[in-house]
Amino acid sequence: MSELLTTVTALAVAAKKAAREVALASSEKRTQALLAAAQAIRADAEKILAANAQDLAAARLKGLTEAMVDRLRLDGSRLEAIASACEDVARLPDPVGEITESWSRPNGLKIVRRRVPLGLVAIIFESRPNVTIDAAALCLKSGNACILRGGSEALQTNLALAQSFSTGLKALGLPAAAATLLPFTDREAVPALGSLRGIVDIIIPRGGPGLIEAVVQSARVPVIKHDAGICHVYVHAQADLKMAQEIILNAKCQRPSACNAAETVLVDAAIAPQFLPQLGTALLAKNTEIRGCPITRQYIPSARVATEQDWQTEHLALILNVKVVSGLDEAIKHIESLGSHHSDAIITADENVARTFLAQIDSACVYWNASTRFTDGGEFGFGAEVGISTDRLHARGPMGLRELTTWKFEVIGTGQIRS
Amino acid sequence: MSELLTTVTALAVAAKKAAREVALASSEKRTQALLAAAQAIRADAEKILAANAQDLAAARLKGLTEAMVDRLRLDGSRLEAIASACEDVARLPDPVGEITESWSRPNGLKIVRRRVPLGLVAIIFESRPNVTIDAAALCLKSGNACILRGGSEALQTNLALAQSFSTGLKALGLPAAAATLLPFTDREAVPALGSLRGIVDIIIPRGGPGLIEAVVQSARVPVIKHDAGICHVYVHAQADLKMAQEIILNAKCQRPSACNAAETVLVDAAIAPQFLPQLGTALLAKNTEIRGCPITRQYIPSARVATEQDWQTEHLALILNVKVVSGLDEAIKHIESLGSHHSDAIITADENVARTFLAQIDSACVYWNASTRFTDGGEFGFGAEVGISTDRLHARGPMGLRELTTWKFEVIGTGQIRS
Repeated sequence: MSELLTTVTALAVAAKKAAREVALASSEKRTQALLAAAQAIRADAEKILAANAQDLAAARLKGLTEAMVDRLRLDGSRLEAIASACEDVARLPDPVGEITESWSRPNGLKIVRRRVPLGLVAIIFESRPNVTIDAAALCLKSGNACILRGGSEALQTNLALAQSFSTGLKALGLPAAAATLLPFTDREAVPALGSLRGIVDIIIPRGGPGLIEAVVQSARVPVIKHDAGICHVYVHAQADLKMAQEIILNAKCQRPSACNAAETVLVDAAIAPQFLPQLGTALLAKNTEIRGCPITRQYIPSARVATEQDWQTEHLALILNVKVVSGLDEAIKHIESLGSHHSDAIITADENVARTFLAQIDSACVYWNASTRFTDGGEFGFGAEVGISTDRLHARGPMGLRELTTWKFEVIGTGQIRS
Repeated sequence: MSELLTTVTALAVAAKKAAREVALASSEKRTQALLAAAQAIRADAEKILAANAQDLAAARLKGLTEAMVDRLRLDGSRLEAIASACEDVARLPDPVGEITESWSRPNGLKIVRRRVPLGLVAIIFESRPNVTIDAAALCLKSGNACILRGGSEALQTNLALAQSFSTGLKALGLPAAAATLLPFTDREAVPALGSLRGIVDIIIPRGGPGLIEAVVQSARVPVIKHDAGICHVYVHAQADLKMAQEIILNAKCQRPSACNAAETVLVDAAIAPQFLPQLGTALLAKNTEIRGCPITRQYIPSARVATEQDWQTEHLALILNVKVVSGLDEAIKHIESLGSHHSDAIITADENVARTFLAQIDSACVYWNASTRFTDGGEFGFGAEVGISTDRLHARGPMGLRELTTWKFEVIGTGQIRS
């Protein structure tokens, strides 16, 4: 066993032991620990910002772009937002212990299906340091322990944040190992975590295609992926064109780096002559590059040629593919063959057409007359989200606290035996 | 790409295409196809029994035990049971399309969470040929296509059964590929199926440790395991001892080869002198070998010494481990450290003790005063079962039709955009 695997295993075993303590702790204790963690983050602000300054200096030395440095940067108000998000999670309803079903059998057995924590949740992420506290808070609220592996650029910041979180845990007598941040960011930590069957109960990778691929290829424990979103807005012939344009601008331009941002717009041929020129003007005003099919380019001459690759690309930027289609069937076929089953919308006033679209598009979230940007735990009313699952099992679409739980069946009898 | 992988891929791609047709077919059509399949099995009885005779002859040549040959054997009444089970599945409530939740958001968005099929389900099994029809029927009822890989000894029988099932599909205009049996049983088919990301949506292995291990080590698609059951019955000091004995005899002896059969009994020290001699006599009368801790052997002199390995072994036979414990805490510690989190029972008249046991034992099914043998989709009232999941994600414990579905969110707006 490599030294790294030995270390990861030891940390995970300790975290798994802590998972049981967390699972059996009262709801009140877990909630108070989250509030204490938020207070510790505020009290430790100076230390955390000093650690962040170290990361920022190292990032500049490594020549990271200013955009990347900015994602890494914490200041007083960003830190306050992290503490306050932790308190928001504390105040969410506790999913643990909830009875989701109960029934009796003819032989008198009473069966209760009760939510219980998953156990030890491994989360692997690359992005902003706030994910450290977000992930730890969501796991603790749902009665789980977590083992986190963040990005290398944010290591000192993440360690400082995890330290403050552990102060909150310890204040309530909970084990610090219940939120374990790996103190290194080696690539080999990914397969190491994925190899720990019976210790790690689930791995959630949040990040780019390289990270997702590394996890899927190596994991021997269940994975819930947070993968690409190639999202579509289909403008049907019976659409309110003003509504369609507003939704497209929102879905593409409001936050193009989000997985629920639109990458492709499909437009019915019947309305293309009327709709495309005005859409083109509006998109150009938002500095959005258009890559179009040949018909699109007749109506938006500034559009570049869309390649086959474009239709399957998550641009994550102000670039939009536009294609004219003959109608509903072609739109569905395009989305089903080239989309990523994340979030897809139809704009139409025709309910029958909309119902067909909602039924035939096999995506986590299907929209009728609304922006794909609503695919989000907060927007759905889940209070917070672990992310957006692009998998079909256990969690699909916005993943909230409930998806961090499983269940047990409690069966109560009076001596029943099976005949 | 190996020839086998090419063939498996081509069959899986065709099955995946069929999955979409099945998912969009009406409930009535899928139900009628199942009834037609049952009729086809009856009409094809002669062909199926002839194929089975081939398998039986080959099995005898290979020197399989009479018990194994018997598991393989079909006759008129066993075949009728297969057809009739297919009709039972047809008559179950259809989970597809069910709305499990719906709510509105303050911005007016209406959100519906609706059950949809998983897609293409791969099931790998080793056991009796009836699983071929069982698995295909459950998948079709839940709107899925399936790709099946059965045991080598039953290949001719399975092919004949799959042929009859496809007659039912075709009678309703559904594609035969919606229930695809691999026409070979090479070991390499397991990693081949597991490599098909984006095509196979889930793999369910049903079988011994070797099969489970082969799937887990090679799969890159989600797996739901149907693994070992090391189940316990804990007899608390406040137990009704007559009830305890009846439950133990049922849990161990009624069908020792089942995963929900008990392997270990824990007995409180306070009642051991009174309870163990009578339990020993009753178990011996059922030809059950006892492997006991030193104290157990004082009260049941015929008991053999239980080794450390025994406490972690799924005997699947008339062998029972018996251990005397100091009380609830030791019992919980034993079960949590040596059990398999499948099904565990406490026998007691003390509700507080029982509630502690139900809360602290982290198993799929926890019992109070009932036999562990009730862990079963039929006994739980699910109508039928794919098996007993020993995983924590998506399905835990008895896995019925609902666990063969996922969901989509349908979001209906009036032009909402995200601010």
